[in-house]
Amino acid sequence: MLLHRTSIEDHNAALLAAHQRRLQYLRSEVPQVDDVLPLLTDLQIAIPSWALGTGGTRFGRFSGGGEPRSIAEKIEDVGLLHALNQSSGSISLHIPWDVPENHASIRSLAAQHGLRFDAVNSNTFQDQPGQQHSYKFGSLQHVDKAVRKQAIEHNIEVIRQGVELGSKALSVWLSDGSCFPGQLNFRKAFQNTLESLQEIYAALPADWKLWLEYKAFEPNFYSTTVADWGQSYLYVSKLGPKAFTLVDLGHHLPNANIEQIVSLLLMEGRLGGFHFNDSKYGDDDLTTGSIRPYQLFLIFNELVEGMDARHMNHAQDLGWMIDASHNVKDPLEDLLQSVEAIKLAYAQALIVDRKALAAAQANNDVVRAQEILQAAFRTDLRPLLAESRLRAGAALAPLQLFRELNVRQSLIKERGTTAVATGL
Amino acid sequence: MLLHRTSIEDHNAALLAAHQRRLQYLRSEVPQVDDVLPLLTDLQIAIPSWALGTGGTRFGRFSGGGEPRSIAEKIEDVGLLHALNQSSGSISLHIPWDVPENHASIRSLAAQHGLRFDAVNSNTFQDQPGQQHSYKFGSLQHVDKAVRKQAIEHNIEVIRQGVELGSKALSVWLSDGSCFPGQLNFRKAFQNTLESLQEIYAALPADWKLWLEYKAFEPNFYSTTVADWGQSYLYVSKLGPKAFTLVDLGHHLPNANIEQIVSLLLMEGRLGGFHFNDSKYGDDDLTTGSIRPYQLFLIFNELVEGMDARHMNHAQDLGWMIDASHNVKDPLEDLLQSVEAIKLAYAQALIVDRKALAAAQANNDVVRAQEILQAAFRTDLRPLLAESRLRAGAALAPLQLFRELNVRQSLIKERGTTAVATGL
Amino acid sequence: MLLHRTSIEDHNAALLAAHQRRLQYLRSEVPQVDDVLPLLTDLQIAIPSWALGTGGTRFGRFSGGGEPRSIAEKIEDVGLLHALNQSSGSISLHIPWDVPENHASIRSLAAQHGLRFDAVNSNTFQDQPGQQHSYKFGSLQHVDKAVRKQAIEHNIEVIRQGVELGSKALSVWLSDGSCFPGQLNFRKAFQNTLESLQEIYAALPADWKLWLEYKAFEPNFYSTTVADWGQSYLYVSKLGPKAFTLVDLGHHLPNANIEQIVSLLLMEGRLGGFHFNDSKYGDDDLTTGSIRPYQLFLIFNELVEGMDARHMNHAQDLGWMIDASHNVKDPLEDLLQSVEAIKLAYAQALIVDRKALAAAQANNDVVRAQEILQAAFRTDLRPLLAESRLRAGAALAPLQLFRELNVRQSLIKERGTTAVATGL
Amino acid sequence: MLLHRTSIEDHNAALLAAHQRRLQYLRSEVPQVDDVLPLLTDLQIAIPSWALGTGGTRFGRFSGGGEPRSIAEKIEDVGLLHALNQSSGSISLHIPWDVPENHASIRSLAAQHGLRFDAVNSNTFQDQPGQQHSYKFGSLQHVDKAVRKQAIEHNIEVIRQGVELGSKALSVWLSDGSCFPGQLNFRKAFQNTLESLQEIYAALPADWKLWLEYKAFEPNFYSTTVADWGQSYLYVSKLGPKAFTLVDLGHHLPNANIEQIVSLLLMEGRLGGFHFNDSKYGDDDLTTGSIRPYQLFLIFNELVEGMDARHMNHAQDLGWMIDASHNVKDPLEDLLQSVEAIKLAYAQALIVDRKALAAAQANNDVVRAQEILQAAFRTDLRPLLAESRLRAGAALAPLQLFRELNVRQSLIKERGTTAVATGL
Repeated sequence: MLLHRTSIEDHNAALLAAHQRRLQYLRSEVPQVDDVLPLLTDLQIAIPSWALGTGGTRFGRFSGGGEPRSIAEKIEDVGLLHALNQSSGSISLHIPWDVPENHASIRSLAAQHGLRFDAVNSNTFQDQPGQQHSYKFGSLQHVDKAVRKQAIEHNIEVIRQGVELGSKALSVWLSDGSCFPGQLNFRKAFQNTLESLQEIYAALPADWKLWLEYKAFEPNFYSTTVADWGQSYLYVSKLGPKAFTLVDLGHHLPNANIEQIVSLLLMEGRLGGFHFNDSKYGDDDLTTGSIRPYQLFLIFNELVEGMDARHMNHAQDLGWMIDASHNVKDPLEDLLQSVEAIKLAYAQALIVDRKALAAAQANNDVVRAQEILQAAFRTDLRPLLAESRLRAGAALAPLQLFRELNVRQSLIKERGTTAVATGL
Repeated sequence: MLLHRTSIEDHNAALLAAHQRRLQYLRSEVPQVDDVLPLLTDLQIAIPSWALGTGGTRFGRFSGGGEPRSIAEKIEDVGLLHALNQSSGSISLHIPWDVPENHASIRSLAAQHGLRFDAVNSNTFQDQPGQQHSYKFGSLQHVDKAVRKQAIEHNIEVIRQGVELGSKALSVWLSDGSCFPGQLNFRKAFQNTLESLQEIYAALPADWKLWLEYKAFEPNFYSTTVADWGQSYLYVSKLGPKAFTLVDLGHHLPNANIEQIVSLLLMEGRLGGFHFNDSKYGDDDLTTGSIRPYQLFLIFNELVEGMDARHMNHAQDLGWMIDASHNVKDPLEDLLQSVEAIKLAYAQALIVDRKALAAAQANNDVVRAQEILQAAFRTDLRPLLAESRLRAGAALAPLQLFRELNVRQSLIKERGTTAVATGL
Repeated sequence: MLLHRTSIEDHNAALLAAHQRRLQYLRSEVPQVDDVLPLLTDLQIAIPSWALGTGGTRFGRFSGGGEPRSIAEKIEDVGLLHALNQSSGSISLHIPWDVPENHASIRSLAAQHGLRFDAVNSNTFQDQPGQQHSYKFGSLQHVDKAVRKQAIEHNIEVIRQGVELGSKALSVWLSDGSCFPGQLNFRKAFQNTLESLQEIYAALPADWKLWLEYKAFEPNFYSTTVADWGQSYLYVSKLGPKAFTLVDLGHHLPNANIEQIVSLLLMEGRLGGFHFNDSKYGDDDLTTGSIRPYQLFLIFNELVEGMDARHMNHAQDLGWMIDASHNVKDPLEDLLQSVEAIKLAYAQALIVDRKALAAAQANNDVVRAQEILQAAFRTDLRPLLAESRLRAGAALAPLQLFRELNVRQSLIKERGTTAVATGL
Repeated sequence: MLLHRTSIEDHNAALLAAHQRRLQYLRSEVPQVDDVLPLLTDLQIAIPSWALGTGGTRFGRFSGGGEPRSIAEKIEDVGLLHALNQSSGSISLHIPWDVPENHASIRSLAAQHGLRFDAVNSNTFQDQPGQQHSYKFGSLQHVDKAVRKQAIEHNIEVIRQGVELGSKALSVWLSDGSCFPGQLNFRKAFQNTLESLQEIYAALPADWKLWLEYKAFEPNFYSTTVADWGQSYLYVSKLGPKAFTLVDLGHHLPNANIEQIVSLLLMEGRLGGFHFNDSKYGDDDLTTGSIRPYQLFLIFNELVEGMDARHMNHAQDLGWMIDASHNVKDPLEDLLQSVEAIKLAYAQALIVDRKALAAAQANNDVVRAQEILQAAFRTDLRPLLAESRLRAGAALAPLQLFRELNVRQSLIKERGTTAVATGL
């Protein structure tokens, strides 16, 4: 389904007056609004191809309808999101769920939607039909060299696919680990994994990055071989300058201070990027910002401060992606909510009075430091996000327009109620 | 130290124009603002007498200066807060840290500051000098009847003190529990505690309430005898209609859904009130709203919905109190921040579009339900709080005025740098 | 596959001398060994029909081979386990995964294996093909009465099936809850659920029990409508004397004191039984006793003390069942390990010196109380379990015999490598 | 109080026959018993000087009696423990709680008791009387260079004291961190801390080690500047080859896999040693092995495997120390229980069939790997520990002898009931 330019224009026209009133007020309250706007516009959040259909748990999955049946339809869905918010300008593919048959036509389709290809993702947490060796007991960590070899080759194949598409990063999440004490020799599992990663790293093109994600638990329930930021850091620092740690917000033990981890990885030059989502218990993969919006703001607060200190380009120098599971919501609506929450947190971080904050820190004025952060967080910056969209040609109220246009109903009509996106 | 009426007036005069511009904008965005104002004004948050000095941990305590040296000075401090925000109109005493020598004069002093006495708190988690039996192994749960008797009598004495002061509730927090497996017979500990509580309950005046607080752990590190809401509920439902559960936000296991607990206790008619604070790890006793402001809002969202469903008076029918420890902040500044955060969350809950929310719930429109809650939370309601203060004769910016007037410096001059408030 | 009587006899003959030496030593150390033996023999642990095949996570499933393809084969598998350990004398069916076509023949098959039918389990956490209403937004809690009705009728149908099989309990685990703030009105969800349960309760035969399981989270990740023991207690106490709480060891928030919960539920006469497993992070469904064996012992310590105080029959008066997921182990081997761990913990609890423990508690002798519990836990009671099996006609070393007889290989030959047990 | 040699001899004589019977049985079951004995005897667990008195929480402290009033009495208490179990052959001092006036006499006193001085501990988590700068906002991290300087000099002074006593390690635990978002710039706090540590490191004698402890939270409740093993690793790898990470079992987020951390730190050559204790919720500082004995065994399982792989001397090459708080038990009895639990876990790890385990791991035989670990853990090795003590001249049953000799009563008679050990 393609969104007509006029749909957005009509939608915006109807909301414009109210929007401008709000923006005007915001400008009077937050003088730096106009400095912030271009930064907001630039930040694009990649959409993972597997988040376009309904997700599930081990207990079941309750399908929605109109799910994309092919890479082409996945690109169309992301194109739709991007048309609505001009903030989702890339798609992250997952191999083997999304092996393109014709790279040229896929690239051309993406370009039509204004999309580029973000990191490509490998998969060694499942067995694929016809696969020679099983990953039941791990992949890059496996005690059997033949299994490791197979997993290494798969990752190299993913890089090859990514090169064809114009990706610049390989994202590696390993479920490798163990379910019971005694199952693994932790040291040997680490060393096998490191050696395997080294072979993959050697296959990276010169301008590529490798992002190594960590996760505390699930699907292994006793140990994970890349379990926390410290372990990911150990691997990437041994791999070389193109290797970085990827932070998924849901991959920590209870109560972890994620913003501190982010700050330290930035300091060490080892932060690669993010998988955004939110969670209350474990890797719940809920809509970003739906449970702990203040934590999200605090993370962006560290990012803005730390990236600026290293003279990094906010939009370009880290990977920004959503990784969520839409079990009870329309996936596209859910993604619109997540992107909005991410950019809201970013905007809040951008208006923090950094000079005053640094002064408060230098004086141990804890009360004042809190006031400064809360002032930014409590300011209603939704008009700023709307203005950023307006200028980029997107909708003032993307979710509202999505519903007004009956997008989901159109997709169901086109694709049916029973299609299941690959990987779900 | 007394705050001169003119200090507030001068302060407000200087900020008035900007305030009115903000309020006017808010009125244009949130039509129900004026309906909400009286409710906001009515809500008073009790200040615990022990939160007026610097707190500490088992590792140490870093004193501030100018701490209150007597009940009279504690009342003055709360009076000061109340003058600044007109939202802290009561004080909660702790016996034996605050045994008044002359009830009449203490009541009169409080009245001068516009304060009333909230719940009185008993203490059986410490031994007091000259006490016959030790609470090392518990108080109301103790295997020795003589110890239980002593603890019961202490609680009855606290009620007596409260009657003299005009309190209407006894707040019971028990540290009773065990540090090691085998130390206690859980069932007998429960039954001893219940019998003890029954004796205390029998001594309650007709118009009093008993609030029974629960806590997952600390200072006992294996079991606690009133450890969760379910256990508190068991006790209070056996005690009778004047017994209620008290919820301290920091007293739960990691990731607990506190707002659901609040909703169910309200449903059962057993919610007594709150000890507000915030925390990241355990009972951290941080400034309310400083870590998880969205959770605080969600709790108030349940409170408003649930109290309205039971036709309860928001301000009167539950106990509202802060229970925090100010280890690195000026205690009075910290309390001003907490009260602001509580009333902000309350205001956000009051502007939730309940009709739309009920409709979204009836349609399982999860996306819409989230939008409704987030819309309320993302709205900047600080001007509403300021207006509520203005009308009540308080300061538009209490914390700012506190600093402009050099209140702490005055208190230090008056009381010295080394005074330690009782109980700290 | 049937186990020949002689296989066990030969196996036992070879191990007998060593066993008797160990038992003789144990008798010299633990005089009450012979009193304990009949209790150990009596305790039977029900095997859930869904635990006979390989489990998985939302990320994938790595099949084993030889999984049962029908109820008949599931019964055969449990029969095999029971022949090996004489401790798994019942099977717990799950409807609709296990709808028997011919009750009489299924009962007769079970009887041939010495098995009875434990609690029957309903399923409203998945949609079944052809089902009219979806459980995407809950079942017994659903805002739509028609959905609730369907779920109620399913539960009543499960009771009917259970009656045909000779079951005496309905086990209800509800995944009902919500994934996002605002999705549910907690109070109405509770009340809908209660009304639904009341209708199901009304359909219980006079000699039946209803077990209501609680779970903190998953598959819902914001709230669960029967989330903790307190909530389950609220429901069952409103339902009536045939309703009880079921405790699954993996269904708690981090660090919960499960043994205290067990003790209090016993005290209130509301403990129904257990789903045994072990876990490190969430509902990991690992082999019982593989992660926290001391906690398992402490739970049995409360059970023995509490059941004896209420003059309950250990084997008959509670439900004892495993609920685990075998992702990386042979399911039958895993079940043998779980049953062994459960009975070991039970045996340890049985030899606790209760008189000495009560005396230590009465004197607050915490050190002594710990010594008493640890003495029982540190004693090697494996010979006692072996003796109990020997007397019952089971194998001295069930797991060893399972492997010696190449049971899995036989099952694979018989059933193939790709069969997937229903529900997996 | 000195323990007479004959007291132990009489005690052992009375228990000898039963002991020998148990040992003989154990030898028949576990052939490697005699290989293990010398290793067990060699392992000495250092006793911290601050664990000899009653501990407390921020809520209070319930004194016991007979607490040591001086370093000399602390040494006597450890001497007493060592006489009883010959396993506590060193004491770890804390400066400034234990500043010796006369090093020669203190060394001579220790030597009389067969004790050496383990790591010395610095303290910048409290302010001391007369101290120029406060550590309220941190020490080595502080924004003010003068405060950092003071803290650095304190650490260097601690090294100097340690040199006088014959210590060979400085143990650094920093409470540095923050209580609120915004309080700290994480990066600058890290860099300040690193620079401070570098100055301290530069002052280490050639044969000394620096152990850097990490802790997730408390007494700071938002961030800690050395919060997890990854952060400690970053510091020590930047410091140099004499810097190592110290693991305190209670300093992790919920559910952390400590044994994996231990394995990886060993692999990297950065594990310095341990502070042993146990916990259920946070840094509960309970008796080692009282809550999660299987986890303790799994940690020792990694230690034995990993140290052997690096050809390390178990007793010499890591620091072994208890760090606990005795709130409800007699401190000396508690320490006897902890030492017993530690050595029991060590013994269990020593009898693990490593060859079989390696084979099971190589075959992904998860069931077998679990059986091997559980077989070691379920074996009753108490007679082995007793034999190790017997050979070393200690008591067969130290705790029993402690009570028979009325040690505590003697200490109370000597020291009174109200003495409070320094630092408590």
